[in-house]
Amino acid sequence: MKFLAEIEILPKKGLLDPQGKAVLHGMSQIGLPQVSDVRVGKFITLELEAGSEAEATEAAETASKKLLANLIMESYTVRVKAL
Amino acid sequence: MKFLAEIEILPKKGLLDPQGKAVLHGMSQIGLPQVSDVRVGKFITLELEAGSEAEATEAAETASKKLLANLIMESYTVRVKAL
Repeated sequence: MKFLAEIEILPKKGLLDPQGKAVLHGMSQIGLPQVSDVRVGKFITLELEAGSEAEATEAAETASKKLLANLIMESYTVRVKAL
Repeated sequence: MKFLAEIEILPKKGLLDPQGKAVLHGMSQIGLPQVSDVRVGKFITLELEAGSEAEATEAAETASKKLLANLIMESYTVRVKAL
């Protein structure tokens, strides 16, 4: 079966996020001063073959830990759905 | 009321995604040859003040269109939840 894994990666809370700060600054300039915090991370989708949703989730977790996220500075969330 | 907007931005289908191709190549090397496609985009969260969920969604849409996504090359998805 084919699955789509969606992985969201964000800088950990409490760590500096200079890109987020820059975007926050831009918000006032486009007329959105009500935005009080911005964090910028990565969004990665994987298409993969797996026997079950659990197996696909495990593969996506492995990919996140070994290749996609820097666990010292980033946290990640994995969502998996059948295609 | 405070809301959290989560914005996922991906290169449009059919457009070249060299970063995705590079990550796909890395998948075989970490023992995940079952991954057949990878797309790499941005994940951005906004904390904002708004009178209603609809109003928060509208602000997040404005931010996506005016500042965060390049609509020629990228598509975006907005999710909003109350904090």
